[in-house]
Amino acid sequence: MVLSPAGNSTTPRRLAESVLAVAGEVTSTEQFDAWWTGCRRWNEAVVRKAPLEELDGWLTDRSTGNIVHRTGKFFSVEGLEVEVAGGPVQRWSQPIINQPEVGLLGILIKDFGGILHCLMQAKVEPGNPNGAQIAPTVQATRSNYTRVHQGKAVPYLEYFRDRGRTRRVLADVRQSEQGAWFHHKRNRNTIVEVEEDVKLLDGFCWLTVGQVHQLLAVDDLVNMDARTVLSCLPLSGDGVSSGQGEDFRSCLERSCAGEHGGLHTTGEILNWITEIRTTTDVGVERVPLNGLVPWSREAGEIAHPSGRFFRVVGVDVRAGGREVGNWMQPMIEPIGTGLVAFLVKRVDGVLHVLMHARVEPGYLDIVELAPTVQCTPENYDVLPSAARPEFLDEVLRASAGQIRFEAVLAEEGGRFFRARNRYLLVETDLAVPPDAFPRHRWMTMSQITGLLRHSHYVNIQARSLVACLHSLLARADTR
Amino acid sequence: MVLSPAGNSTTPRRLAESVLAVAGEVTSTEQFDAWWTGCRRWNEAVVRKAPLEELDGWLTDRSTGNIVHRTGKFFSVEGLEVEVAGGPVQRWSQPIINQPEVGLLGILIKDFGGILHCLMQAKVEPGNPNGAQIAPTVQATRSNYTRVHQGKAVPYLEYFRDRGRTRRVLADVRQSEQGAWFHHKRNRNTIVEVEEDVKLLDGFCWLTVGQVHQLLAVDDLVNMDARTVLSCLPLSGDGVSSGQGEDFRSCLERSCAGEHGGLHTTGEILNWITEIRTTTDVGVERVPLNGLVPWSREAGEIAHPSGRFFRVVGVDVRAGGREVGNWMQPMIEPIGTGLVAFLVKRVDGVLHVLMHARVEPGYLDIVELAPTVQCTPENYDVLPSAARPEFLDEVLRASAGQIRFEAVLAEEGGRFFRARNRYLLVETDLAVPPDAFPRHRWMTMSQITGLLRHSHYVNIQARSLVACLHSLLARADTR
Repeated sequence: MVLSPAGNSTTPRRLAESVLAVAGEVTSTEQFDAWWTGCRRWNEAVVRKAPLEELDGWLTDRSTGNIVHRTGKFFSVEGLEVEVAGGPVQRWSQPIINQPEVGLLGILIKDFGGILHCLMQAKVEPGNPNGAQIAPTVQATRSNYTRVHQGKAVPYLEYFRDRGRTRRVLADVRQSEQGAWFHHKRNRNTIVEVEEDVKLLDGFCWLTVGQVHQLLAVDDLVNMDARTVLSCLPLSGDGVSSGQGEDFRSCLERSCAGEHGGLHTTGEILNWITEIRTTTDVGVERVPLNGLVPWSREAGEIAHPSGRFFRVVGVDVRAGGREVGNWMQPMIEPIGTGLVAFLVKRVDGVLHVLMHARVEPGYLDIVELAPTVQCTPENYDVLPSAARPEFLDEVLRASAGQIRFEAVLAEEGGRFFRARNRYLLVETDLAVPPDAFPRHRWMTMSQITGLLRHSHYVNIQARSLVACLHSLLARADTR
Repeated sequence: MVLSPAGNSTTPRRLAESVLAVAGEVTSTEQFDAWWTGCRRWNEAVVRKAPLEELDGWLTDRSTGNIVHRTGKFFSVEGLEVEVAGGPVQRWSQPIINQPEVGLLGILIKDFGGILHCLMQAKVEPGNPNGAQIAPTVQATRSNYTRVHQGKAVPYLEYFRDRGRTRRVLADVRQSEQGAWFHHKRNRNTIVEVEEDVKLLDGFCWLTVGQVHQLLAVDDLVNMDARTVLSCLPLSGDGVSSGQGEDFRSCLERSCAGEHGGLHTTGEILNWITEIRTTTDVGVERVPLNGLVPWSREAGEIAHPSGRFFRVVGVDVRAGGREVGNWMQPMIEPIGTGLVAFLVKRVDGVLHVLMHARVEPGYLDIVELAPTVQCTPENYDVLPSAARPEFLDEVLRASAGQIRFEAVLAEEGGRFFRARNRYLLVETDLAVPPDAFPRHRWMTMSQITGLLRHSHYVNIQARSLVACLHSLLARADTR
């Protein structure tokens, strides 16, 4: 037979074993702690705000006012005019980052002692609130790996780019990033398993999936790029099942396994997404940053007169670690800490997640599935009350017993300055009838994982929460 | 239990029964013939060429030269500049149709006597080579159903638009159309089953899937919109299996069923698509039609100096049937009959289709999976020899015994004037090693059907061939 089997391979079971190996195999928890302490000391970066006018290498285009790199590469900050027919805010203007190239986010995986390990790195980025964070093996813009910035070669890139190499590709899919701040930005999320020996470089560490999962619960530790790649792991629940219980973890396992069905079939979910994407009228036009009402550029920053939403700021970076020494760049600095939450619910022994079909102006395809709630609560002080997100109160009022996961995690530190969200998994028994909430649907983890094989279905914040929810597969918890 | 089952529903089996019911149930072959003869007589249209300058309701924009409707609705003809790094033709300009709205193509399905039937209509369109063709139940641009053209209401539209109605949605997905002639055009392909009584209007007819399939083999009969919707039927081969044979049909059934695996896993196919989409650099810019080198506007048409590719022409339509009486419009008139072919191959008892990852400038996502060969052979007389499609000679030289299907079918008659392609399914035993042919991959029908649940994977020509290949499920053939 030359045919490859159609059914599940052994990969989900091997991944499940790694999910459960929270104590580590190659790297013990103590060894990780020691390594991490060393990395943080070594990877210091001094980041200072700098006026947009004084950023070396960056220009304000005379006619458009757009902020561009003198090489025309990397990215630019431009204006966007948005019109959402029937939305609570029907029309607005905003600055947005335009970075059309597709970067690579890759995790290299290898079996040690029968357990799959992820090669993770300590990476400093200027927008990180606290210096180094845990990043995927490779996190490279196309400018990085074509060496526009004349930095060093990207380590381990060859495992992802050499097609001739013997390897197993566990996931490979382009996914969107923040559609509120990025115009059509996508990165390639890739997970590759190799059997050959891999040299361990300084600043890198082999961790089981379970170890990385447990680190998700630590504030500001696992970076956004690591979280999105982790969410693409083809975890099916196969190999973690603990039996017939009605406890949270058993319900989560059944949700991942998929064979138990769900409140809606996948066909119904796809029908719902197509309906919303076809009937949502969103007009998006790229416009010059000059004269973008009501934003103003003063004191070296671009800000909204309300003081809300975000600012465009400049930073001056002096890094002491593996990265290029000194550089300056514009960044987006959000105002306030965001709130990102899944409501989850056990239905007939299967955990369901309440997904929200959300419009963001930078999406390539109008609408993506977002967390139940994704917002910065303070922004609604200056917006019409109809704009207040549904289910926000359920999340804000959740009792300690309802909260299954909570951590404050940072977004991309290469473009966003100290952008932090409180990530929450909140259990509920709320009824959410589809007719009353046409833009929300209960989905199983298996359905979400199925959509994650394809581009532009599940947004970046929801992907972070998928990784967090997967991390609960290893938590002993019989409630 | 409130959960819907995750596994296959009974739908594939019920569809398979309809595929095999080639003699009809509600409508016998004789009744169909009589109905169709009547429709053709009743639905006469007189279509004459008219100079672009003399089209009632259409204007040439003074500054851009673009051809637009005076209402700003419907569609426009604009210019496009295309750059494909590393392609055999790296840079070209062309006129293109811009029609950003998403139309609806829907087939209504209903069970009669235990057999599913499709409600098909006889529809005249000005570009059809021969008047009426068999069309889906609903074929409506958004302008149609919002009544911009002030025509009559679209019959049966309510079955697709009223979400409150009791119905089963068998497929609902936005799919691209010709990326060589349309900029970012997509239509919603929807298949809805109802149980309630449906009034049969003049010009409509209930046919089994098998009957429509058999009509695909008749030249210029089943229109493109019907073919693309048919390709989205969730046929799994379940219910058509004839056993263990190595004959063509048994191999096709196994290919549809999917459980027998394939030369590549679906993960490998997705990895291949992501790799190609990430590494193919295509630059597309909408430009004014004015001064689009080397195209010229003379004698009321826009043409390429080589006389090849296509022309933009005007037509004057006087329709005698159900459509609005008289109108004029611009159309694209391709030069020459195209050739569209799948090479198919039995591998370990499973039929495989050789798909081609093809760039077309109008695609929303750079590359889609196209037939093995899709071209107009005469065009290569004026193009570099490297542009000659791979596998063209295998298709042109195929013996009668290799040809499993052949018909000349027309493309969308609402925008394209007498655009016809010779559709071929050619069996081969050619070895196509992936390293030597990086843009081609053997796929099973199950893999193609799986991708057809999602947007922008399988192009319009390949979807026509998928419908044609499905039609062979009912052909007794033991070769």
